[in-house]
Amino acid sequence: MGEGRNRVLIVGSVALDNVTTAHGQEERILGGAAVYGSIAASHFAPADLIGVAGDDFPQRYLDLLQHHQIDLQGLEIVPGGKTFHWGGEYQGEMNEAITHFTELGVFADFKPVLPETHRDNQFVFLANIDPAIQLQVLDQVRNPKLTLCDSMNLWINIKREEVLEVLRRSDVALLNDTEALMLFDTHSLPTAGEKLLDLGLRHAVIKKGSHGAQMFSADGTFAVPAIPLTEVKDPTGAGDTFAGALIGYLASRPQHDEMAFRQAVLVGSACASFVVEDFSVHRTSGLIPAEIHERCRVLHDAIHCEPVVF
Amino acid sequence: MGEGRNRVLIVGSVALDNVTTAHGQEERILGGAAVYGSIAASHFAPADLIGVAGDDFPQRYLDLLQHHQIDLQGLEIVPGGKTFHWGGEYQGEMNEAITHFTELGVFADFKPVLPETHRDNQFVFLANIDPAIQLQVLDQVRNPKLTLCDSMNLWINIKREEVLEVLRRSDVALLNDTEALMLFDTHSLPTAGEKLLDLGLRHAVIKKGSHGAQMFSADGTFAVPAIPLTEVKDPTGAGDTFAGALIGYLASRPQHDEMAFRQAVLVGSACASFVVEDFSVHRTSGLIPAEIHERCRVLHDAIHCEPVVF
Repeated sequence: MGEGRNRVLIVGSVALDNVTTAHGQEERILGGAAVYGSIAASHFAPADLIGVAGDDFPQRYLDLLQHHQIDLQGLEIVPGGKTFHWGGEYQGEMNEAITHFTELGVFADFKPVLPETHRDNQFVFLANIDPAIQLQVLDQVRNPKLTLCDSMNLWINIKREEVLEVLRRSDVALLNDTEALMLFDTHSLPTAGEKLLDLGLRHAVIKKGSHGAQMFSADGTFAVPAIPLTEVKDPTGAGDTFAGALIGYLASRPQHDEMAFRQAVLVGSACASFVVEDFSVHRTSGLIPAEIHERCRVLHDAIHCEPVVF
Repeated sequence: MGEGRNRVLIVGSVALDNVTTAHGQEERILGGAAVYGSIAASHFAPADLIGVAGDDFPQRYLDLLQHHQIDLQGLEIVPGGKTFHWGGEYQGEMNEAITHFTELGVFADFKPVLPETHRDNQFVFLANIDPAIQLQVLDQVRNPKLTLCDSMNLWINIKREEVLEVLRRSDVALLNDTEALMLFDTHSLPTAGEKLLDLGLRHAVIKKGSHGAQMFSADGTFAVPAIPLTEVKDPTGAGDTFAGALIGYLASRPQHDEMAFRQAVLVGSACASFVVEDFSVHRTSGLIPAEIHERCRVLHDAIHCEPVVF
C-alpha cells in the first residue's frame, strides 16, 4: 500500500449492528456501508474512510480498521455522541432484513468534510446514504476518475431527483434489481440498465441476490451467477463488500477497459460471497489473496464456455 | 439431415392454442411442447415426433412440421377426435400463463406407441407430460444415450414419486426454478441442483426466466443470462424450444463432454430467445443458422471474461 498507488475514497455509514439470523444473534458488531466497503477495498487498494461515529465506538474496531491500512482522518468521532445503531433480523431466504430499530445518533447530522489530502482521490465510492450527502462529497473531490454510486429504495422513493442527480455525476451505478426497476418504473432489467446508461453512466451493475450480478454498458451486458454457497450466516454488508472490492480492484489496475470492469464484477461477487459466511466483517477482515483468487477462479469457471460451433 | 445422423425422439403435446398477450390475440395457432421442441431440434438434428392429434389438426401445420424434416410416423391422428386445445393469456411481466380453458381431447387417452424405427433413437426428449407416459416411452426405447426430462408443477404436486422415477432414469433434467425448488422443498437452487444430481442425473439445467439458465453437474455450475430482449410477444414454448435446441445440438455433436453441454445451454437459450419474439413457432420455424449463430455469439459475449489477475 505504498505511495503513488491509487487510493479509494469511501463515504457512508459507520455502525454498530444487532443482527439476528437462523445462525445466531450478535450485538453491537462492527457494521455500516463505509466499513464493509473499506475493508473489502483494502484488499486491493488503500482506502480513505469518510464517516462519523460517537465516542461509544469501540477502540478495537478503530484498531481493526487501521490494521487494514484504512485512513481514518475522515472519520469524525463526536464527543458524547452515539454511533449509528441498527438492529434487525433475517428470516427464510434472508433476502431482506426486517428492521427492529434504527438509532441514527451522530449519523443524523452527518456533514462530510473531506481532509485536504483526500480531495484528490480519483476513485470514489458513494455508499448508500442520503443523496444530498453524496452530492456534498462530489462537490469536494477535485478530479474524480471513477465514481461508484449506491443507493436504496428509501432514497429512490423520497428523493428520486437527487438520486438521479448523483447518478448523472457518477460513472458506475451499483443497485440491486428491485431498486433499479423501481427507479425507472419498469419490469425489465435491460430497460433499467439502458436508462441508467442514458443518464451518462458508463456502467450499471445490478445485484440480483441469489441470481448473481449483471452489468450493462455500451459494450453490452455481462452476467455472473452467485457463488453456490453452502451456508449464509449473515447477509449484512454483501452489497457494500461487492462495491468496495469492485472499486478497490479497479483502483489497483493500470487500465479500466471493459475487461477490467468485468473482472472487477467477478472480484466483487467473490468478496461478497465471503462476507455472508459470517457475521460482521469476521470473514472479510482476515481474507488472504489466495482465497479471493480461488473464489474468482470458481466464478470464472461458472461462466466459462468455448464459442459455439455448429 | 442425411442417414447416419443421430435422430432426436421427442414426446409431448401437440396442441392448438388460443393465446392473448399485450401484443395481440391469436386463435388455434400451432402449439404443444412436442411441436416447439421438434422444430427447435430440427435446426440441429432430424427429429421424430411422438404425439397425438385429432383430425381437426390443420393440414398446413402437418406441412410445416414436415417442411422441417420432422418424422411424423409417431404422430397419431385420431379420426373424429379433437386436438388438445388450450387457451390462456399472459399479463404484466408475462412470467406465468393464466389458463382460460384446457380441452384435452384425444390427448386424454394418449398412449404413445413408438414406431419400430424410432426405438433405437439415442437422444430422447421427454417433454412436460404425465410422468406415467414418460415412463411408457422409456420402456420402449432400447438404448438411449441421452435422455432429457422436463416436468411441471402439476406432476410434482400430484405424482411426485413418478416424476422422481423418470428423473432417475434420465440423464438431464430441465426444470424451471420454481419447479426445482418445489420438487425438493428448498429455497436454494444449488441445493435443488445437488439433489437432482443425487438422483443419478448427469446434468440439471434450471431455467430462471429473465435470469437466464443455470446448469449443475459434477463439474460444477454454469450460468448464462437471458438475452436482453427488446420485446417479448408471446412466451409460450420458450422452455420446450430451449430443450429441443439443447438436445438437438447435443445430438449433432461428436462429443458430449462438459463443454458440449455448456454450448448446448447457450444454444438452447439463444433459440428460446427467438421463439418469444412472435406467437406460436412463427419465429423459430424460419430460423437460419446465421441467426442462431449470431445470438449464441451475443450470449457468449455476455459471459466472456479473462481470468482475474491481481
